[in-house]
Amino acid sequence: MDELQTFLRRRSPGQNNLSTARVEGDAPKVLSGLVNGVTCGAPLAIIIDNTDTRSDDYREERDIPRPSHADYAAHIKFKGYQDVAGGGHFSGRLTAPLCIAGGICLQILRDLGIAIEARIIQIGKVRSSDEEMRLAILAAKEQGNSVGGIIECEAVGLPVGLGDPMFDGIENRIAGIVFGIPGVKGLEFGSGFEGAGRMGSENNDSFYMDGDTVKTRTNHSGGILGGITNGMPVLFRVAFKPTPSIGIEQNSVSLSRAENAVLRVKGRHDPCIVPRAVPCVEAAAAIALYDAYLDR
Amino acid sequence: MDELQTFLRRRSPGQNNLSTARVEGDAPKVLSGLVNGVTCGAPLAIIIDNTDTRSDDYREERDIPRPSHADYAAHIKFKGYQDVAGGGHFSGRLTAPLCIAGGICLQILRDLGIAIEARIIQIGKVRSSDEEMRLAILAAKEQGNSVGGIIECEAVGLPVGLGDPMFDGIENRIAGIVFGIPGVKGLEFGSGFEGAGRMGSENNDSFYMDGDTVKTRTNHSGGILGGITNGMPVLFRVAFKPTPSIGIEQNSVSLSRAENAVLRVKGRHDPCIVPRAVPCVEAAAAIALYDAYLDR
Amino acid sequence: MDELQTFLRRRSPGQNNLSTARVEGDAPKVLSGLVNGVTCGAPLAIIIDNTDTRSDDYREERDIPRPSHADYAAHIKFKGYQDVAGGGHFSGRLTAPLCIAGGICLQILRDLGIAIEARIIQIGKVRSSDEEMRLAILAAKEQGNSVGGIIECEAVGLPVGLGDPMFDGIENRIAGIVFGIPGVKGLEFGSGFEGAGRMGSENNDSFYMDGDTVKTRTNHSGGILGGITNGMPVLFRVAFKPTPSIGIEQNSVSLSRAENAVLRVKGRHDPCIVPRAVPCVEAAAAIALYDAYLDR
Amino acid sequence: MDELQTFLRRRSPGQNNLSTARVEGDAPKVLSGLVNGVTCGAPLAIIIDNTDTRSDDYREERDIPRPSHADYAAHIKFKGYQDVAGGGHFSGRLTAPLCIAGGICLQILRDLGIAIEARIIQIGKVRSSDEEMRLAILAAKEQGNSVGGIIECEAVGLPVGLGDPMFDGIENRIAGIVFGIPGVKGLEFGSGFEGAGRMGSENNDSFYMDGDTVKTRTNHSGGILGGITNGMPVLFRVAFKPTPSIGIEQNSVSLSRAENAVLRVKGRHDPCIVPRAVPCVEAAAAIALYDAYLDR
Repeated sequence: MDELQTFLRRRSPGQNNLSTARVEGDAPKVLSGLVNGVTCGAPLAIIIDNTDTRSDDYREERDIPRPSHADYAAHIKFKGYQDVAGGGHFSGRLTAPLCIAGGICLQILRDLGIAIEARIIQIGKVRSSDEEMRLAILAAKEQGNSVGGIIECEAVGLPVGLGDPMFDGIENRIAGIVFGIPGVKGLEFGSGFEGAGRMGSENNDSFYMDGDTVKTRTNHSGGILGGITNGMPVLFRVAFKPTPSIGIEQNSVSLSRAENAVLRVKGRHDPCIVPRAVPCVEAAAAIALYDAYLDR
Repeated sequence: MDELQTFLRRRSPGQNNLSTARVEGDAPKVLSGLVNGVTCGAPLAIIIDNTDTRSDDYREERDIPRPSHADYAAHIKFKGYQDVAGGGHFSGRLTAPLCIAGGICLQILRDLGIAIEARIIQIGKVRSSDEEMRLAILAAKEQGNSVGGIIECEAVGLPVGLGDPMFDGIENRIAGIVFGIPGVKGLEFGSGFEGAGRMGSENNDSFYMDGDTVKTRTNHSGGILGGITNGMPVLFRVAFKPTPSIGIEQNSVSLSRAENAVLRVKGRHDPCIVPRAVPCVEAAAAIALYDAYLDR
Repeated sequence: MDELQTFLRRRSPGQNNLSTARVEGDAPKVLSGLVNGVTCGAPLAIIIDNTDTRSDDYREERDIPRPSHADYAAHIKFKGYQDVAGGGHFSGRLTAPLCIAGGICLQILRDLGIAIEARIIQIGKVRSSDEEMRLAILAAKEQGNSVGGIIECEAVGLPVGLGDPMFDGIENRIAGIVFGIPGVKGLEFGSGFEGAGRMGSENNDSFYMDGDTVKTRTNHSGGILGGITNGMPVLFRVAFKPTPSIGIEQNSVSLSRAENAVLRVKGRHDPCIVPRAVPCVEAAAAIALYDAYLDR
Repeated sequence: MDELQTFLRRRSPGQNNLSTARVEGDAPKVLSGLVNGVTCGAPLAIIIDNTDTRSDDYREERDIPRPSHADYAAHIKFKGYQDVAGGGHFSGRLTAPLCIAGGICLQILRDLGIAIEARIIQIGKVRSSDEEMRLAILAAKEQGNSVGGIIECEAVGLPVGLGDPMFDGIENRIAGIVFGIPGVKGLEFGSGFEGAGRMGSENNDSFYMDGDTVKTRTNHSGGILGGITNGMPVLFRVAFKPTPSIGIEQNSVSLSRAENAVLRVKGRHDPCIVPRAVPCVEAAAAIALYDAYLDR
């Protein structure tokens, strides 16, 4: 539980000036499944209380949907009954349970010799140093604006042969979880979109013997061939759109009056979700890979 | 069935000099589920016979795995018992049943006013005219090489509110099928990876009233917000790696001798899978969207 | 919520001298999914706190498994880590969440004109009056013994055509839930086991026109043909074994010493689970039938 | 394949005067998944051609549904488009693929030391000798009538700990498959319905040490406690209704004229499905138990 708590803290807001001023706490309470720190076979039920919500902040969103946020689609889907406070079940807060499940998988995978690590490779248009990426977030924050980014994730120590052909491949499994993280709009494995521009002779990963082990000289396949791990690191990148909730005035519509309207979002929001999303991407990879491991 | 047959013909090889010389036929025989051209409620069982296979072509692959092909991963996973003839169940031929399922969904969706259309936007590094893209494929073919590309797909006429939060969003559903198409290594929705480099104020899609209808001025979200359709066209792009089977000599290993080896692939292969993958991408979108429609 | 609370009260213990002296409370707290009494589209998360547990009562069970209880099987399956307090997730208490799900389905089905009602038809060997069945339970209780019984359940108002062939038939769906109720060891539809002894001419249900409606003169099929509802009441019976926890001394084994041992169960237990299981059977039927309704 | 073919022959009709005169053949052709008699990891696709169908026999059923057969429910569900020839996908012939899947599981389970065997314990009202049960079927046949029966099935050699609590218990899993066999209307485990009439002290299975092994003196639980195997034989009984298709004139309705009508079924039908259902019950048990084994 200590290790899990440490992992969860990485996605918590309010830790520094890069994220929302909300203090979510994220202290998970175990309701069942754990006896004296050991899983007992019963389902793990874990709860995280919301300790710092201000429902008033979200009143206007019920009538004037925030651009590029789920407000409007949810309003139609749920016929106006959707829970707008804190974004309801579209809130980024729902990555906390994802990180709990993933954090547990990470512990199990580590005992199997498998390690997963994600890192930010781009914030806005900045691909250089961490400090410059930090400054890009602060600049967006000062303007009441937001900025997106790209996270790269690598899993090492995987055995050859995890994953299944067609719809149960490692790519499908990772995609099925990763696109559940709010704000994700792109996913690529290995050389991905850039690889689409290459010749086969450039993009193919040649095999060679490294002692008794079969390896590839390059890893443009991102460790996955035919949906199945080939023993090289599984490597993928995730594109996050800029947070849609910005302080700047935006054009929208009034749903009640069916006319154009202007919106100024008042809630406290992250100028950039990407730093807090790093453990979420690790968690998603861990869930997908452990699932494939169990199916092997 | 006529319409389905026409759709299937678009993915068949041997139609022109851009694809493999194999003639697969792809004439689907319906075994059950159809009585006098009408579905009868029993499961549709459809079979496509392989009419032009030459298993001898694949003998060497059992010992010397083709770089960036599933051979090696499958060899380990299935302990040497995998079916290598024609690539077994890793063959691109398995997109034929995908296109049958998707072709049927396309007919149903069309009756619901929903249309799906995919097109090639990049072959190798070429993003200009169709003719130049065609020449890029022929150039690769002449060299015994191969080339990748990018397909863009758009679905219009979708109602607002399809898809579900978290893991059952439209992105997750499309990804779950699209990554089942052999050779797919990337997927992005709306502004995707490029959007990750934008500010919120640039990337957000402003709402406005178009008569009684809520629309957005831009579609950087690709028609999906919080996993749910927002009424704008669903838009995504798929990155295909270059076909791994090339005629050029490549470095690999001999699995039986556990030593480095050189491979020259002899089978007949597509210099570029992308043209034949266009209906596959449409099929994948149709299956995912019809599935979301049934869950609405 | 009031209606749900009323429904839940029917399965609560401690209401009269027929059931355990434990007072479970069963007051469900809604954590998410409900806003001002209306479902908002987010998952319904509901919690029932255990307010009256005495873990000390269960100490001996860890070493000396109770005959015909899950103790021993769970001990082996979960390698000694299983939660024995209150029976862990084998406790009859887990029918409370079943009744919450089923109670909600019952409300929805009622609005669709579908009613489900279960009743006790046998306690021990008694099949006569309610009073005699009540006395059979009290007699068992006085002896520190227990007694089983049979519940019959009927669903009326179902449209023709719910359920699917083979493994998704109404029988399969109901069985899948009903066998999840602790203590259930038998299930039969319509004439069931007795019907197995009949000739086809006796057991077949003749059709006739009742005005514009097709009905059957008998209902030996229990309202289900080929897994699909035929418009007649769905009718099934559920056999409950006598509660395995009895006060009488029983032969068992000591798992730690691997030798025979004698057990005297000290916890407070129901002399008969059947009266409290009536709403559970209704709940199970409601879940299965509403599920089939959604798949129609 | 030889062993599978031998197993399938047990459910084939036309073997003696107890079953329909139809000769189904049931020779399975493997389309994929098997290379030189060894599974290769690709899905097993197996086809059985219908070699002896006479669609004309079923013409009348489209308008006048057979009592206690799926005709009427299917007519409504599939809006008149259902395939009536041979009963469509309600045909008992669909137990052939069930037996193929189950026959394969039986071979795998046998290698794990697990054996499954079913036998007829009742035909009509006869529970005595095989010869008397055979005569009961012949008597029904001579009258153009039919008769039901009960099959008992036992699985031995199972490890302790297979199956999961609540809805994934061994009972749920077996029920989910067994109720997919046409004609099944009841299922009970261990002492089942009779046990519902017993006291706890009579029905409980006392534990004792048999050398190092924990066993129970009786097996009223049918080898399953809390949904989990306890190491004793898994034991269950299945009630089959008499075949609804009988040669005797029956009352029904004309769907086209919406009036009462008289039906005389002309097809060739089994006077008793039970003898041919024995391998089907074994197959169902094998599928459910191997599934639980894989989930252990």
